Amino acid sequence: MTETRLPIALLTRAAFAPFGDVIESEGRDHYPINAGMAQRYHDLAEVDVMAGGGRPLISLLKAKPVALPLRLRLMERHPLSSQAFIPLSAVPFLIVVAPASRTLDLARLKAFRSNGRQGINYRRGTWHHPLLALDSVSNFLIVDRGGEGDDCDEIDISDRNIFVES
Amino acid sequence: MTETRLPIALLTRAAFAPFGDVIESEGRDHYPINAGMAQRYHDLAEVDVMAGGGRPLISLLKAKPVALPLRLRLMERHPLSSQAFIPLSAVPFLIVVAPASRTLDLARLKAFRSNGRQGINYRRGTWHHPLLALDSVSNFLIVDRGGEGDDCDEIDISDRNIFVES
Repeated sequence: MTETRLPIALLTRAAFAPFGDVIESEGRDHYPINAGMAQRYHDLAEVDVMAGGGRPLISLLKAKPVALPLRLRLMERHPLSSQAFIPLSAVPFLIVVAPASRTLDLARLKAFRSNGRQGINYRRGTWHHPLLALDSVSNFLIVDRGGEGDDCDEIDISDRNIFVES
Repeated sequence: MTETRLPIALLTRAAFAPFGDVIESEGRDHYPINAGMAQRYHDLAEVDVMAGGGRPLISLLKAKPVALPLRLRLMERHPLSSQAFIPLSAVPFLIVVAPASRTLDLARLKAFRSNGRQGINYRRGTWHHPLLALDSVSNFLIVDRGGEGDDCDEIDISDRNIFVES
């Protein structure tokens, strides 16, 4: 069966805009608070978690690293909410996404590499592979939705022979 | 005028409970996700930001370090919302708090030192000093409230001669 090799792009706000937000301070406006002792980079992601009686959650994730090349396994989306991952270990990681839509279009898959200072926020409905840590066990902060309702659709793509490589 | 020396306590969930949440993975329950590739530490803080038509914000903060001993300057509280700070630089920092109440009770001030892996979430109304970074310029993620309404009360305490020391 044909194999697809998915190239890895640098994560930039422009490139990621169809899928959600990049949470980073580089290149962003900021303003002083605390009598100039700190700079605030304000409101960097659209936190969209209130649908269906939802509420914002703060959770932590400890992810094992993967080895590249890697066969993609699964895509998922949250039809009711955004979901943000912010790296706490300053280690690069990979993000694999496809545009929000009822049906997953594998021809529109994109892979991005965070520099380890960049977090991401998947827009509600954006298809995404489970996050791919690199190099070492990596810690992330998650901001997503709690509450009733079925907020996860999954599609097994392990038989599609799609690989990301370094 | 009399000087007050405020001792610094280790930050633990039990000790911080009157003021809010400690966001950490150590000692917390977790469950596997992503086919066992990751562990999720779920719902570690009470994000309370919806009062008065509020919405959750994700922001970043870059804080200059302070030198100890330090004269405390200002206490503030957010009457409409909780506010979380999660360290992204893995550097210890100090938190100074007093219980939520209309009037600030300086006799009940407490100072805590985060180990750099611990974030905190001030419960709505908890009095707190602007966060005190140590050692180096430190980055934090903030989860707090956006929206209308006056959500910050401040009290100048710079003339009260209260010091934290290492």
